[in-house]
Amino acid sequence: MLGQGGSVTSIRDFDRDEIVNVLAVAGKMEAGDHYGLLQGKVLAIMFLEPSTRTRLSFASAMMKLGGQVLDFGDVEHSSFKKGESLSDAIRIVAGYCDVIALRHPWEGAARLAAQIAGRPVINAGDGANQHPTQTFLDLYTIQKVCGRIDGLTVGFVGDLKYGRTVHSLATALSRFDCRQVFVSPPSLSVPQGLLKELEEAGVEHEQSEDLRGLLSSLDILYCTRIQQERFADSMEYERVKGAYRIGPRLLAECGVKDGLRIMHPLPRLDELSPALDETPFAVYFEQARNGVPVRQAILAMVLGKV
Amino acid sequence: MLGQGGSVTSIRDFDRDEIVNVLAVAGKMEAGDHYGLLQGKVLAIMFLEPSTRTRLSFASAMMKLGGQVLDFGDVEHSSFKKGESLSDAIRIVAGYCDVIALRHPWEGAARLAAQIAGRPVINAGDGANQHPTQTFLDLYTIQKVCGRIDGLTVGFVGDLKYGRTVHSLATALSRFDCRQVFVSPPSLSVPQGLLKELEEAGVEHEQSEDLRGLLSSLDILYCTRIQQERFADSMEYERVKGAYRIGPRLLAECGVKDGLRIMHPLPRLDELSPALDETPFAVYFEQARNGVPVRQAILAMVLGKV
Amino acid sequence: MLGQGGSVTSIRDFDRDEIVNVLAVAGKMEAGDHYGLLQGKVLAIMFLEPSTRTRLSFASAMMKLGGQVLDFGDVEHSSFKKGESLSDAIRIVAGYCDVIALRHPWEGAARLAAQIAGRPVINAGDGANQHPTQTFLDLYTIQKVCGRIDGLTVGFVGDLKYGRTVHSLATALSRFDCRQVFVSPPSLSVPQGLLKELEEAGVEHEQSEDLRGLLSSLDILYCTRIQQERFADSMEYERVKGAYRIGPRLLAECGVKDGLRIMHPLPRLDELSPALDETPFAVYFEQARNGVPVRQAILAMVLGKV
Repeated sequence: MLGQGGSVTSIRDFDRDEIVNVLAVAGKMEAGDHYGLLQGKVLAIMFLEPSTRTRLSFASAMMKLGGQVLDFGDVEHSSFKKGESLSDAIRIVAGYCDVIALRHPWEGAARLAAQIAGRPVINAGDGANQHPTQTFLDLYTIQKVCGRIDGLTVGFVGDLKYGRTVHSLATALSRFDCRQVFVSPPSLSVPQGLLKELEEAGVEHEQSEDLRGLLSSLDILYCTRIQQERFADSMEYERVKGAYRIGPRLLAECGVKDGLRIMHPLPRLDELSPALDETPFAVYFEQARNGVPVRQAILAMVLGKV
Repeated sequence: MLGQGGSVTSIRDFDRDEIVNVLAVAGKMEAGDHYGLLQGKVLAIMFLEPSTRTRLSFASAMMKLGGQVLDFGDVEHSSFKKGESLSDAIRIVAGYCDVIALRHPWEGAARLAAQIAGRPVINAGDGANQHPTQTFLDLYTIQKVCGRIDGLTVGFVGDLKYGRTVHSLATALSRFDCRQVFVSPPSLSVPQGLLKELEEAGVEHEQSEDLRGLLSSLDILYCTRIQQERFADSMEYERVKGAYRIGPRLLAECGVKDGLRIMHPLPRLDELSPALDETPFAVYFEQARNGVPVRQAILAMVLGKV
Repeated sequence: MLGQGGSVTSIRDFDRDEIVNVLAVAGKMEAGDHYGLLQGKVLAIMFLEPSTRTRLSFASAMMKLGGQVLDFGDVEHSSFKKGESLSDAIRIVAGYCDVIALRHPWEGAARLAAQIAGRPVINAGDGANQHPTQTFLDLYTIQKVCGRIDGLTVGFVGDLKYGRTVHSLATALSRFDCRQVFVSPPSLSVPQGLLKELEEAGVEHEQSEDLRGLLSSLDILYCTRIQQERFADSMEYERVKGAYRIGPRLLAECGVKDGLRIMHPLPRLDELSPALDETPFAVYFEQARNGVPVRQAILAMVLGKV
């Protein structure tokens, strides 16, 4: 179980019981005011790639527990640009704080950092690899809005090839009894490796290009951005984008379940109509908010305070 | 009256009683140590235009009350640059904090934000429009250094056409019994709309190009920068700049009142001689300091803590 | 003695007793948890030159004592770029905080700031001149790892001409009974002024190009980076760099003392082999960590809390 001194580098390190435990602690965090729990503790936010949303969410979690935040700030001006090695930098920063949240463009950076820091390291994104606190907040949101994770049909739509968020969530959901549906253009379909992993885990899953035909079966629709830079042909981009644009009319036409809930890691562009924002389907802003109790739980656990 | 959950988007929303009330709370803030009053509260400083002074003043106010500050930091790196809408960003940030201080280049941005945040929003400048906490600290300074606001003659000098600070303060002073004097080159004179507003409010006022002739009647001289970029002709800029440069010799020659107090929103360039700094006339550094108790008052009021 | 309201602008202002006193307070800071000591106090970190490591170390020191930190952040966006004078900026910032840590490219900036701030100012580096908290943490590290300062032989190697850190530490060590050894290429040798100062103080010292011949006599080896931009001829740079590269093999060949301890202000490039990191010789990461208790001591002293 995640405990004092532990690091969080990959969702793959967490089995079902451990995930359930983190979500339970997050629930307690959200239910009460725990100001003072991390008093005197310092979180270093060391983001070598910008990510305003994740940065603020970590900082808010720490502050709401009475801890303080040491923000590296603008990477351009840090000594990393003077050629200092990541391992030197981690060793030095570790001397200034109690826990590190690290975002880094290289896969494996967080695991390396965890080995040398002598402090808990929380991976806040390492390249195309892992972003485990995002996965925990996605799972927390599903459990909160559906009352459970087991027994659900979860559909992923958009860029399923490059979407780190999707891959990690699919892996995590494979520890639960979920049906998984993947909807994307062929050029952005989910990697074979992930499909194989789901097969080996005995997860019921389906792949399709056709959003309309699948929508009515879903309990959760997890949308992601389709980024223009993935397409050589801008006409093809426009066509694909249009085919996966979600709005109230599409939902009505496809006869979705009343209980359907739509998630998105944000920021969104055109893929989710603002007309959905005030409907019960939309839970993406709540999902963003859930980052705070989930990160509070993880911070408190690795600092040995729960 | 401004209270829990309220937003501060424009000085126009405040009548005389409400202004007096805010100034009274600011006075209490300055008189004592209220550390702990905002313990556990988080202020998000979301500045989409740089403003070091206002940013630090808000942060200091929050910290001195025991609250914490979530600073967006460098806008260049935020996801706003990925095309995210302001309303999405506000909704997300609202999930991380208890109150938002917003600076944005668009007029009306703060009012929009206040409508959708579900949290108090304090306008820290929206384009050429409003910067109400600056106006409150200007009023607080006048009351503090003169002992009153009613019965004073307040002169504005410099760029009165583009100076947001001047327009807001003139509007606020129109709720009090003040005489207002506007001194500027014709090309930078106060907008007709503001003059009309003062007329309708029955405010005694005067417009002139001649600083020397008017100085002796003033209780408050409010200076602003004249910016070179407002002038097509750099010779004209130099002439105007020279005509409105304030120093000890000019004050002596014009026979100003002993009680004259000179204000400036800072930063200054050449318009105020450093030779004034140590004289009793100069209150501009005190004015800057007054931003802290005034912002403490507003933060505490909208968070329901006074 | 350094006390409430005092500023720390130059190590030259500190005699032996005062240095010993600061180190003793730092020792107490490191030995216990003093969270709450600076509660309600605000440190403004005003760095007009980037220095991630020093910035984070000051911030951590303040936070670990329960104080809060007002960070200027990215200088590019501050109003200093609008032509505001340093003295105006200092006066304004002084109104927002209780103590200022200033880093500025101009020699003497910290002393000027200390004269006008009306608040304690701690010099965090003023051009090529002084960086006294670095010197205190260097002295603290020597005392901690050797158990004493008197009676040691301290060798400096690398760029001794431009290395501010070296000059200040040599001056400070001249208050103690230390032998000082300076090893550098002739083009980067220690300034004549410093040698004269040591002579006048009666300090035993030696200058050489030959690292190998001197290593065995040292208790402390203080390394600094040799920067390529100091050399007109890149071949010469490569030759010099190679001659002063420290690694386990060199240490073994030269028969260094078991008690030799190697320091470096960091970041390092090639001058210190990573193979040293896990040996007892290496104390440079501990040295970096020592910045926190030393800065805690100084902050607490100038705020009158010890």
